[in-house]
Amino acid sequence: MNYNVSEKFKSLKPSAIREIFKSLGTPGAISFAAGNPNPDSFPVKEMQEIANEIFENEPVTALQYGITEGYTPLRDLVKARLKRVYGVGADRDDLIIVTGGQQGIELTCKVMCNEGDVVVCENPSFIGALNAFRSLGAKLVGVPLNDDGIDVEKLEEALKNNPKAKLLYTIPTFQNPAGITTSLEVRKKVLDLAKKYDIIILEDNPYGDLRFTGEDVPTYKSMDTEGRVVYCGSFSKVLSAGMRIGFVCADKDLVSKIVVAKQVEDVHTNVLFQMICAKYIEKYDLEAHIREIRKMYKHKAELMIKALEENMPKTVSFTRPEGGIFLWCSLPEGASLDEFVKKAGDRLVFVVPGTAFSADPDEPCRSFRLNYSMPSDEEIVKGIKILADIAKEL
Amino acid sequence: MNYNVSEKFKSLKPSAIREIFKSLGTPGAISFAAGNPNPDSFPVKEMQEIANEIFENEPVTALQYGITEGYTPLRDLVKARLKRVYGVGADRDDLIIVTGGQQGIELTCKVMCNEGDVVVCENPSFIGALNAFRSLGAKLVGVPLNDDGIDVEKLEEALKNNPKAKLLYTIPTFQNPAGITTSLEVRKKVLDLAKKYDIIILEDNPYGDLRFTGEDVPTYKSMDTEGRVVYCGSFSKVLSAGMRIGFVCADKDLVSKIVVAKQVEDVHTNVLFQMICAKYIEKYDLEAHIREIRKMYKHKAELMIKALEENMPKTVSFTRPEGGIFLWCSLPEGASLDEFVKKAGDRLVFVVPGTAFSADPDEPCRSFRLNYSMPSDEEIVKGIKILADIAKEL
Repeated sequence: MNYNVSEKFKSLKPSAIREIFKSLGTPGAISFAAGNPNPDSFPVKEMQEIANEIFENEPVTALQYGITEGYTPLRDLVKARLKRVYGVGADRDDLIIVTGGQQGIELTCKVMCNEGDVVVCENPSFIGALNAFRSLGAKLVGVPLNDDGIDVEKLEEALKNNPKAKLLYTIPTFQNPAGITTSLEVRKKVLDLAKKYDIIILEDNPYGDLRFTGEDVPTYKSMDTEGRVVYCGSFSKVLSAGMRIGFVCADKDLVSKIVVAKQVEDVHTNVLFQMICAKYIEKYDLEAHIREIRKMYKHKAELMIKALEENMPKTVSFTRPEGGIFLWCSLPEGASLDEFVKKAGDRLVFVVPGTAFSADPDEPCRSFRLNYSMPSDEEIVKGIKILADIAKEL
Repeated sequence: MNYNVSEKFKSLKPSAIREIFKSLGTPGAISFAAGNPNPDSFPVKEMQEIANEIFENEPVTALQYGITEGYTPLRDLVKARLKRVYGVGADRDDLIIVTGGQQGIELTCKVMCNEGDVVVCENPSFIGALNAFRSLGAKLVGVPLNDDGIDVEKLEEALKNNPKAKLLYTIPTFQNPAGITTSLEVRKKVLDLAKKYDIIILEDNPYGDLRFTGEDVPTYKSMDTEGRVVYCGSFSKVLSAGMRIGFVCADKDLVSKIVVAKQVEDVHTNVLFQMICAKYIEKYDLEAHIREIRKMYKHKAELMIKALEENMPKTVSFTRPEGGIFLWCSLPEGASLDEFVKKAGDRLVFVVPGTAFSADPDEPCRSFRLNYSMPSDEEIVKGIKILADIAKEL
């Protein structure tokens, strides 16, 4: 039969990246397309040991229904770490554990936005978030990124032109896909604009722990004196992506609404992995573990940047991230991104075309995203040479 | 600051049951309020053994991002079991793994309904589903339950009066909260009405495995020749509730939309537990395990019914479920449910007032839900006596 699905889902397509991800099985393929953490970053032995302890000593807590807010010891540990590392968590704030960072983003929009409300976002931005906003009937308004973060003048223009703007969605640190970090100066201006136009800032910080060079920039949430910032984070990039553990820190009035929204989506996040996270933080040195991941990604990022510098024609530009797992490459004017991506795929090198990250998919785009956390050193060197060869032919 | 949350969330309250659940810590409290499986139903040793094998042999699969559709071996095993046990799964059908049965319900409504569309449901019905529909801006229309399932005449009236009806939500087997099973005759009539008024049936079957007396009634999905039935199930009541593993079986066109909806909610369901479920089904005898749970619940249900028969005044009626984990008690006309529930709570016996399950919470109600899967035998005997004493005083 023909299904009369909801208006919002009639046109919504699966994420281009996750579709690419599914077809990466070809032997010899080099993927710069994923957003995955390197499996060497999973503390397998430690997690196994902790899981065993839980199955021995507290199996019922792990396997029975839990409360929607999350496993209390983990909430307390995450609150303490956010405060210590990121200055996140005011007196009026609360924290809820969610099923991966993605759920935090989706729930925040669900709670804040009516259909037709506007979500302002960086352009390009994380496709998973953009599709979440679309799936809730929100209208996306993209604002271009400069090297120091969102273009503040164009942001004000967008806010002026869109009185129904409710949320600004931003990944200020090691942005996905662009690898850019918003400067302190820009962050301050953005906070002022948020206040002036009375919008909520949804600060998505999945990569913040992965800085391998330069100095930390204060989070929006740490500068927020009004409860205007909702902060989303995740353990996906530092412990395990498959376990689906994220968190949202916000004013307690908003968190209480997010709790209701989560309750009707999946009741609560799987308890065993919440317990594993808590006990990992208690028993082991999470900060030392993160330092090891940073070393690995620093090496890979530097290797990729060196390969790009040595091989790419000078007409191709790229960002030089100070952390995270992505960089952003742009082809020269006149070049066809579709042709480039297709030729790369024919030679089994996979990148994600920038169009996937656009608030407006019909907008022309000459950029693509490169991931360096997953490929091996050999793959990085070989794959970038192939991409450079193709770029030279354009 | 004051948050201008979305219209849908302005009035939505947390589930009354989950709020009761949080405050059950008092020593000596007897709870008939939960919807939890008995922890003795968790195969702890087997799950621990399997988890260890996975951490030894396939840690990366378990801890890395997975595909939204779910862990392929689990999907295949669930498809095979649904076909064998429930006749569920036509040629055009597909199956997606979701984060507990709750997510299947919410995603189906999200994909099917625009704001203002009508979801018809049994009255009373599962509060988690009702709140999910409310959170998506759907309008609820409740149809009373008879002893053999939904009132077919009133269902037709509701469908006639509500041209925007898109979904019928039903728990046909061991209904939550009423413990009623819809007869085959009623199911056939409901399928005819669904066809006549062109609506989708969302068949929620979390308790179907827990029959301890009487004969199985064919699922709606097994009688569906058009792809009109979306079937939701879960491992929460047979392996573990805390692991959050459910599934949706429906026509592949609908499943592909549900995949997109799930992708933006939580990317995918936690992989380790999907693997544990799959390996449990492969290595152990799930059907034998389920037979043991049925024995336990048969004993507890019979004990509760006996205690009700022996102690309750004859003016109090109750259902006699053939499976599942709930029965439904009704006070005589003129009795105050609020007073009853309050007096019970004062004596540390907790039940869920029927108002929590109503499509229209302002509707008067004299019924309450009793759970028998969680309390001990002693608690059942003692708790029912206390409830009977209170009922006699009304």
